[in-house]
Amino acid sequence: MSFLKFTPRKLTGPYSTHAYRYFSRPITTNRPHFPCVEAHAVRESQLRQTTSSSLSSSVSRNPSSASGPEPPYARPNPHSYHVYHDPAPLELTYGSTLPSFDIAYETWGTLSPERDNVILLHTGLSASSHAASTSLNSAPGWWEKFVGPGKALDTNQFFIICTNVIGGCYGSTGPSSIDPTTGNHYATNFPIVSIFDMVHAQFRLLDHLKVDKLYASVGCSMGGMQSLAAGWIHPERVGKIVSISGTARSSPSAVAMRYAQRSVLMADPNWNNGFYYDGLPPHTGMKLARQIATITYRSGPEWDLRFGRQMRSLPEQTSDKPRMPALCPDFLIETYLDHQGEEFCLKYDANSLIYISKAMDIFDLTASSLAANQLMPPPSASSTPTLSSSTAHKTSHSKSHPPPVNPPPHLTDLAEGMRPLSSIPTLVLGVQSDILFTVEQQREMADALRMAGNERVSYYELGGVWGHDTFLLDVLNVGGAIRGFLS
Amino acid sequence: MSFLKFTPRKLTGPYSTHAYRYFSRPITTNRPHFPCVEAHAVRESQLRQTTSSSLSSSVSRNPSSASGPEPPYARPNPHSYHVYHDPAPLELTYGSTLPSFDIAYETWGTLSPERDNVILLHTGLSASSHAASTSLNSAPGWWEKFVGPGKALDTNQFFIICTNVIGGCYGSTGPSSIDPTTGNHYATNFPIVSIFDMVHAQFRLLDHLKVDKLYASVGCSMGGMQSLAAGWIHPERVGKIVSISGTARSSPSAVAMRYAQRSVLMADPNWNNGFYYDGLPPHTGMKLARQIATITYRSGPEWDLRFGRQMRSLPEQTSDKPRMPALCPDFLIETYLDHQGEEFCLKYDANSLIYISKAMDIFDLTASSLAANQLMPPPSASSTPTLSSSTAHKTSHSKSHPPPVNPPPHLTDLAEGMRPLSSIPTLVLGVQSDILFTVEQQREMADALRMAGNERVSYYELGGVWGHDTFLLDVLNVGGAIRGFLS
Repeated sequence: MSFLKFTPRKLTGPYSTHAYRYFSRPITTNRPHFPCVEAHAVRESQLRQTTSSSLSSSVSRNPSSASGPEPPYARPNPHSYHVYHDPAPLELTYGSTLPSFDIAYETWGTLSPERDNVILLHTGLSASSHAASTSLNSAPGWWEKFVGPGKALDTNQFFIICTNVIGGCYGSTGPSSIDPTTGNHYATNFPIVSIFDMVHAQFRLLDHLKVDKLYASVGCSMGGMQSLAAGWIHPERVGKIVSISGTARSSPSAVAMRYAQRSVLMADPNWNNGFYYDGLPPHTGMKLARQIATITYRSGPEWDLRFGRQMRSLPEQTSDKPRMPALCPDFLIETYLDHQGEEFCLKYDANSLIYISKAMDIFDLTASSLAANQLMPPPSASSTPTLSSSTAHKTSHSKSHPPPVNPPPHLTDLAEGMRPLSSIPTLVLGVQSDILFTVEQQREMADALRMAGNERVSYYELGGVWGHDTFLLDVLNVGGAIRGFLS
Repeated sequence: MSFLKFTPRKLTGPYSTHAYRYFSRPITTNRPHFPCVEAHAVRESQLRQTTSSSLSSSVSRNPSSASGPEPPYARPNPHSYHVYHDPAPLELTYGSTLPSFDIAYETWGTLSPERDNVILLHTGLSASSHAASTSLNSAPGWWEKFVGPGKALDTNQFFIICTNVIGGCYGSTGPSSIDPTTGNHYATNFPIVSIFDMVHAQFRLLDHLKVDKLYASVGCSMGGMQSLAAGWIHPERVGKIVSISGTARSSPSAVAMRYAQRSVLMADPNWNNGFYYDGLPPHTGMKLARQIATITYRSGPEWDLRFGRQMRSLPEQTSDKPRMPALCPDFLIETYLDHQGEEFCLKYDANSLIYISKAMDIFDLTASSLAANQLMPPPSASSTPTLSSSTAHKTSHSKSHPPPVNPPPHLTDLAEGMRPLSSIPTLVLGVQSDILFTVEQQREMADALRMAGNERVSYYELGGVWGHDTFLLDVLNVGGAIRGFLS
């Protein structure tokens, strides 16, 4: 891979700090040039400089003071969160074992003397434990508006714990961690992890903190999967379950969209089969992957309202001649995707993206899948009471939302698998404009829980145009449903 | 870019002929290997061999007898279609000019003595002129079931012409063509082309064929855009318009999905700013782009039915232990996307994909956009009769489908721009599960035509799970609507 020579020139305007706004000097006068493509080489060049200088200096302890685009996950700041180190092995779903592991976590609120007010908050794919600002880290968290006094997760009442998941890169053990048995980064020697493994590690932390039972297990997106998995593994230790825009089994279209992301990432030569920690990260593949992901996080109707067919403004634009379209980002929707990709591509570890997105794909609470993975015994007609859609329901809520009359086989299979969740009050909330965790999957989850005999399923669908990202934005409706359910 | 050494080993099973089914010998015993990533290097290696051998031999005239993965568009077979060479310049929308141009075309049926039975069939993005088999080329065409005696486009009655579009790579002038002024491939010195430019070139062919007026202009997907553009440019030369899963202006989400494809393609080092014709094509970028495109062509519900959460079968699979998930394609939906990408990546020219997808993005029949591109004068209050949603309609059909009562501004803008189409009977057909050309855009198109005063708008929405690809599959409903409209 060879790179062009650059003469960076900073332009003004939105996103002016991003690399593709630097225009190169054309190599030959007859050939067009493409700032959006050259941006990858600019970033690579900057990374080379930073990598070579950081190799000869000590690791910065304060990410905010660090200069250059060195990935922040490569500069962990353990002063901004707690780390629980468990020296004992963690056995994983697919037969491997982590010899020991770390879990990064943060807390909000006060643990009651009875230790009965704990909410375990699960994150989406790429989030850290920093759900909200703390005394250790004043930066706003990813759910800042939902965690605090009087908020959806009310810190006047609850003690909230949020962890970085196993497989992640923000302080918990993941592919970028050092394998204690070799002294090298795990890279793609890291074992395949499942949503169940993430939750097992979280309960080891809860054991350490002497928390026997959660008041509630709460999560959004992938966190919704973990929230269900927590109740599934330890029904007696989970008081309530909240799943916001989650699913009990990933759909083929969600797998497809994550597969497309993994494909572009793994095709980046810098990915190097996952062994890039001593060199340059696959920043281009990460940018391209994030652009695809961003398409799945919002909705077309939102973009219609927000961007429509507006184009970015050009310094040289005049009104007396037609604007020449560019092959690089031109419409605002394109600059938006470019911006999202650029912002993310050095913030998160590529291997973590691959492993955790895979964990989401393979999550499946149907009885047949659980049995195939030896997570529960195969269903047998004699030992298993027959599921019925005509089960009597006691609460008025359940009466008004009975299970389906003639459920399709996959729904019966799912209800069978979700039986361990039958006595845990569960909030299922989904968004009609979500194309990643579709509303059909929310209905399926609620139906399966009810078929499994759960009489305390609260189910909400939200409208609006924010798609999957609604859980990050809609404090009024998402926050209100959670607050009501937890109180 | 360096490549691994391979010991190809062919496996059995579906898609076993594809490169990623060749497993490599691991470089070091401690590092995992990834057949899906190595497939790119395998393909590159095969291309290197083919390219070097083809450079020393004459170009094959028969694609079917050609061996190796050399792109078929690099081996044009002018014996299988007609080529109209126009020696005169073609002036383009955005100020550039093609000094001369070729249009590849095929025909079906018999031209009437009055030359009044001509249907111009427009293609989607990547299709050739080969809509159906001919005496020159017996291979099935992309719309084989829709073109022929007694079919939707009935060759007993009509003379059908289908062209490869300007910008394409199947015989018409495009980025892979030789620029007569330089003797080199145009590459990205090819000018930006618009849907209007494609249609202008088609009418130059019609002039050559002495066809004054089309019985109908028919198109699906991008062809729907061309179909509208034909009537817009030459209202007096188009008798009827058929738009199947088309649009009058691309939505931001469609632009986003095509932008993601262009991004991964242009990031492939082989793309080389578009100048790859003397070397290796960006086959990896093309594969990744096609995977993304494939996601937009079908629908989640179809994949639920077709693939569900089934995984590919493994030779070594046993039932007594959990199956270890792979980071390479594992679910059938993943192998499907991989297969689609692999099949396409050497069939189509990368620059054609970039230019034509851009032409789709910039197509916009709103009056404000047309005025900005100097395609029509800016609307003025005095010269333009006010559009009204309360226009009287004469036909019973229009009465049952009146224009909206309080149209939003963008719809008024679109109706204003579509006024040249007000007297051409138009069939608008869309599919509710289409995520690329959404049903909202179909409704918008029909509403705008009615607001523009068109009293002969036939409008259909189809259900079903086939998404955008419905126009290729649903002979009964799509074919039936077309046949009814044309008769």
